[in-house]
Amino acid sequence: MENMNLSKHISGQFTAELDDIRNRVLAMGGLVERQLEQAIDALSALDAELAQQVIVGDHKVNGMEVSIDEECTRIIAKRQPAASDLRLIIAISKTIADLERIGDACVRIAKAALDKRLNNQQPLLVSVENMGRHATRMLHATLDALARMDADAALALHKEDAKLDREYEGIIRQLMTYMMEDPRSIPDILDVLWAARAVERVGDRCKNICEYIIYYVKGKDVRHTSYEEMEKDMQS
Amino acid sequence: MENMNLSKHISGQFTAELDDIRNRVLAMGGLVERQLEQAIDALSALDAELAQQVIVGDHKVNGMEVSIDEECTRIIAKRQPAASDLRLIIAISKTIADLERIGDACVRIAKAALDKRLNNQQPLLVSVENMGRHATRMLHATLDALARMDADAALALHKEDAKLDREYEGIIRQLMTYMMEDPRSIPDILDVLWAARAVERVGDRCKNICEYIIYYVKGKDVRHTSYEEMEKDMQS
Repeated sequence: MENMNLSKHISGQFTAELDDIRNRVLAMGGLVERQLEQAIDALSALDAELAQQVIVGDHKVNGMEVSIDEECTRIIAKRQPAASDLRLIIAISKTIADLERIGDACVRIAKAALDKRLNNQQPLLVSVENMGRHATRMLHATLDALARMDADAALALHKEDAKLDREYEGIIRQLMTYMMEDPRSIPDILDVLWAARAVERVGDRCKNICEYIIYYVKGKDVRHTSYEEMEKDMQS
Repeated sequence: MENMNLSKHISGQFTAELDDIRNRVLAMGGLVERQLEQAIDALSALDAELAQQVIVGDHKVNGMEVSIDEECTRIIAKRQPAASDLRLIIAISKTIADLERIGDACVRIAKAALDKRLNNQQPLLVSVENMGRHATRMLHATLDALARMDADAALALHKEDAKLDREYEGIIRQLMTYMMEDPRSIPDILDVLWAARAVERVGDRCKNICEYIIYYVKGKDVRHTSYEEMEKDMQS
């Protein structure tokens, strides 16, 4: 399996640049993971102060996306990378776009935490919190697979997203029941619904990142491919 | 203003490749625009057959994304483009990702059209249809700006998205009122809500594409920048 040990480069400077950009993506991933953890904490405790921190913190995520993207373009123009180096830079450039969108999902979750009336919806908050912890673990494992450029772990995680989707469908059904039983609570419950939706999207983004890992390692674009086809590709 | 007339290239073959990829993106845009039109038609008439066509047609959109992306990578590796050529390829590679996601939004709208019970929700369908036509015009104008690489048009369109957002907020309020008045209709109305949400996301994607146009023409990454800052940048 290819890995990110890029010492094969004749140009030590180029190796250092690739190492640097790889570290920056992992740092951005770490920041997004903390944002997600805190957004879920804020929602489950309806902690408005923590929610505000998450909302403000998103600027940092956005800034990292732009600066890493600039660096990717600079490296392509200056180093004219080919083969696996080019795939690495393309995979990174796509990964940061998905990390940025996970950051946006955190903001949406944090905004729901500002609705104090959700205090009356504790059972729903517990469901979303559980789903949120699940998504956080999935993001953590995705970043792990990215650090090690582990295509097998990426394939396993790709499948994990289906579980999160089922959890989400269960929550939507639960939310519908609550809305039908107490129509006055509909505006509040819609806030929970947007938060649940945002958590579900985190899983989709992790799945995308897993596809970029497989693309880098296997040199094959597996987007829009079923799990079974992917598994076959991985063995070939 | 820079334009896409790339005849300056010494390599006629390279020019032909850039022309070809530009034409393929515009063709993909045309296909996505038809998908959006048909998805809105299907929803407003609750035409299940047309909705199925849209759902099946999304495979073609996905295939175009993958093949154009491969071509972008191939050109970078083979031609080692710099400056505006590299920006063009990066702008294209990001644009097709957003076009593909607009394609996903069309599928979500088409799926709502399969809910026959929405026949009882005609006023809501009219609101979503109006918003959908608005989004379709915005996509059409975005693709126009892309064909001409017109940064001024892109900036104006970027602002247009705020109108679509307000229209969306109005629809959400309308949906809440209907749900509160008739709780039994909640599951059906949620289908309309997902469709409205998908339409709103089309506007966000168009906004992204406008940012890539500005990036190509002005050489400046304007993501996460306010309209006022952008306007200032454009004048400088």
